[in-house]
Amino acid sequence: MKTLVLKKHLYQQIAEGFEQQIRSKVLVPGDKLPSLRLLCEMHGISQSTAMKVYYELEAKGLALSRPQSGYFVSVSMQRHPQLPQTSTPSGQHSNIDAEEIIERVFSIPNPGSIMLSNSVPANELLPIAKLNKAMVQALRDLPGSGTAYGESQGNEKLRKQIARHAFMIPGLSHQDLVTTNGCIGALSYAMMALTKPGDTIAVESPVYFGILQLAKSLGLKVLELPTHPQTGIETQALGKALEKHKISACLLVSNFSNPLGSLMPDEHKKEVVRLIQKHHVPLIEDDIYGDVYFGENRPSTCKGFDESGLVLWAGSVSKTLAPGYRVGWIAPGLFKKEISRLKLFHAISSTNITQQVIGDFLETGRYEHHLRKLRRALEINCRHYSRAIMDYFPEHTKISRPQGGFVLWVEFGKKIDTTQLYELAIRQGVSIAPGRMFSLQDQFSNCMRLNYGMPWNDKLEGALQRLGLLAGTLS
Amino acid sequence: MKTLVLKKHLYQQIAEGFEQQIRSKVLVPGDKLPSLRLLCEMHGISQSTAMKVYYELEAKGLALSRPQSGYFVSVSMQRHPQLPQTSTPSGQHSNIDAEEIIERVFSIPNPGSIMLSNSVPANELLPIAKLNKAMVQALRDLPGSGTAYGESQGNEKLRKQIARHAFMIPGLSHQDLVTTNGCIGALSYAMMALTKPGDTIAVESPVYFGILQLAKSLGLKVLELPTHPQTGIETQALGKALEKHKISACLLVSNFSNPLGSLMPDEHKKEVVRLIQKHHVPLIEDDIYGDVYFGENRPSTCKGFDESGLVLWAGSVSKTLAPGYRVGWIAPGLFKKEISRLKLFHAISSTNITQQVIGDFLETGRYEHHLRKLRRALEINCRHYSRAIMDYFPEHTKISRPQGGFVLWVEFGKKIDTTQLYELAIRQGVSIAPGRMFSLQDQFSNCMRLNYGMPWNDKLEGALQRLGLLAGTLS
Repeated sequence: MKTLVLKKHLYQQIAEGFEQQIRSKVLVPGDKLPSLRLLCEMHGISQSTAMKVYYELEAKGLALSRPQSGYFVSVSMQRHPQLPQTSTPSGQHSNIDAEEIIERVFSIPNPGSIMLSNSVPANELLPIAKLNKAMVQALRDLPGSGTAYGESQGNEKLRKQIARHAFMIPGLSHQDLVTTNGCIGALSYAMMALTKPGDTIAVESPVYFGILQLAKSLGLKVLELPTHPQTGIETQALGKALEKHKISACLLVSNFSNPLGSLMPDEHKKEVVRLIQKHHVPLIEDDIYGDVYFGENRPSTCKGFDESGLVLWAGSVSKTLAPGYRVGWIAPGLFKKEISRLKLFHAISSTNITQQVIGDFLETGRYEHHLRKLRRALEINCRHYSRAIMDYFPEHTKISRPQGGFVLWVEFGKKIDTTQLYELAIRQGVSIAPGRMFSLQDQFSNCMRLNYGMPWNDKLEGALQRLGLLAGTLS
Repeated sequence: MKTLVLKKHLYQQIAEGFEQQIRSKVLVPGDKLPSLRLLCEMHGISQSTAMKVYYELEAKGLALSRPQSGYFVSVSMQRHPQLPQTSTPSGQHSNIDAEEIIERVFSIPNPGSIMLSNSVPANELLPIAKLNKAMVQALRDLPGSGTAYGESQGNEKLRKQIARHAFMIPGLSHQDLVTTNGCIGALSYAMMALTKPGDTIAVESPVYFGILQLAKSLGLKVLELPTHPQTGIETQALGKALEKHKISACLLVSNFSNPLGSLMPDEHKKEVVRLIQKHHVPLIEDDIYGDVYFGENRPSTCKGFDESGLVLWAGSVSKTLAPGYRVGWIAPGLFKKEISRLKLFHAISSTNITQQVIGDFLETGRYEHHLRKLRRALEINCRHYSRAIMDYFPEHTKISRPQGGFVLWVEFGKKIDTTQLYELAIRQGVSIAPGRMFSLQDQFSNCMRLNYGMPWNDKLEGALQRLGLLAGTLS
């Protein structure tokens, strides 16, 4: 005798029951939910099914676990903290050297510190054993086990798989791609190909400090443009800047920018593409976070809306699989010849074996499988952080609402200087990224970036609690 | 009862017997030596001992094997071909674009061709199985199996081992080293740190074309200086150039330069160091071939004679272990801060796992063990090539006498254009590197570089024979 096939899994049905109770206020924010053991008894389900119920509620933002206390109805559904403001860069360079702060934060080893200052996934979130298997396979598959030079343009298997994976860019082929030393290697070649010393590039504000450092080392000026914490760069401001200034290239992180986590809506992406085409200014699109979305679908890219070839699309697996492999890429559009030559002249080729491993990982579908788990874990972590910040940080603290990526942007009241907060926090074993690192102007001294790429646990809860208390002493 | 311990191995004693017969003209050039089987019978030795006898004679340049014919007393001991001339660059830039030739030679895949155009060791000469074992060990040893970012300055195990291996540079420590993407990555950072567009660098002539390409991509002018095929750059010419021109950096391959194979004597190295110190001009010393010497000892470096910190010493394992790993390094002396920053800003860090593998290979002594075999194989190959060139190439062809490295430099009579020869040869499945690639001036059109980094066999003999015949048709 066959049982009826249910359309929904049992755990989904049970989760929906809770959801209805929450929506109809039978359960209210802060209410404790049944323990896992009790839930098992109530529904005659296994422990693992019970856990799935709460994962489902967590992913929907309806429930949160508190270490050693169990699950509670989430409060963050009800009281959304305010968003940080749209940035308003003045165009005035600051006397304070962001460089010094960056060096202070990243050059001094702090073994044992909780590194909320980084923007990388923790080892626990990476499929290391599977990557190692792929490595052994690559040793078998590659000529000379990877000791021989690979193609200068990049490992072909990898380029084919990237092209296949990039379905949001119609018509992209492996011939359009050049592999690089991580995404930063792609940005480096792109800037070298498109600019000369003294030129100006336009960027978001706040902007990833690595972009500022790269620009500085190439003798470039940086024009920081107003940016909204949810929708990214203000297209009107970009339009005006392109009218007014001689800009050699724009550089945007269109999906889940670092540090704001903003996601440019399709209409904004199209408008940016229209603007750069009108002014014949190339756009370097850093899409390093694009695969780590919390929504239903992979977000679009400016490159996908561009038919002119002016968009150079860059990515890597440094945020999803293996930062230490240094595998990145660029689809340079019109500038493929220049970029290919730069790579040949400055590097000959990239490490072949790590490229082959990633190519294999994509080909076998393991990358997609891993991404599904990673996205879910990050989304849950993000909610935990938001809740903890609301619980422990001074009132009126504003936080970003990232729709993907690894980082939260926190804006305190004007009095709190996060460079000072850094010094206090590092003594208590917590490292943060002060806001001043993300601009060459006198901005964001009351902001900071926090990495939520680590699995949630008691230590993190404690670290955020300490941060909140320290911030309180400064306000 | 103990047998007497012989100071010399049996094979060495037998080889010495042959040597005496050759020196005393009992055996004369061209004489056939006993077959391996006969030699075994004559001395009651094993086949492998008999082979060692001939390897010993080959390494001393006294015997040569001819495919399918056995061993013969070498003729090259007697009639040394003439050396190519000291170069005399005019300072006039040529209209012919070396770039086009380089692209023609290296961009078009020639599957099945015999690649005498390269400068890399063949797979057969690399310890691939042992490297793979080290790879598996590295997966175990590294945090996150190498998925995590390594130190920006470079893998510490590797840097410590390079410092230990570099005994010819007194006092070098791992803290003085920054790892790079192969040796070319080291040259790239060094040029970026020391020059700006429009500056001039001084180099040897002929010079490795990759240096010309790199300089061009950074907008630099190149001053090519007279260079002797045995002793390298003419120090007097360098001194005059430093007096007369504003030079931002010198770049020399002090040991077994590519393409000449020249080895700067210690006195020349010291003089170069004195000159650059006098003029306060940094020297980038590309020592990529230094470990592949045919003599008794590892040659010295300019860096080892420098106390000012003006010498930046660069190396890699691309010519000895694994080009595809992209593991190189630089000891930037006074410029460590600039180079470290360039690396951090343009790459963040290098692929960690391949660095760890090389570190392990050095630490366990496998590198030294491998080098001993590699040097011997290359020296024997070099002699085979020289003999075949004398046998098959037009009379009065001049060839370099490299004391290490991978390449021979061949100078034909003035009438023979090696760019034409390239086109003829490639149709017959042989790829060469025409001399025009090694200068921006109208030089070396009758020269070519040949790679002897492949184990000697019938196919190579045939390839050189065809090359010689083709050259004959052009003269």
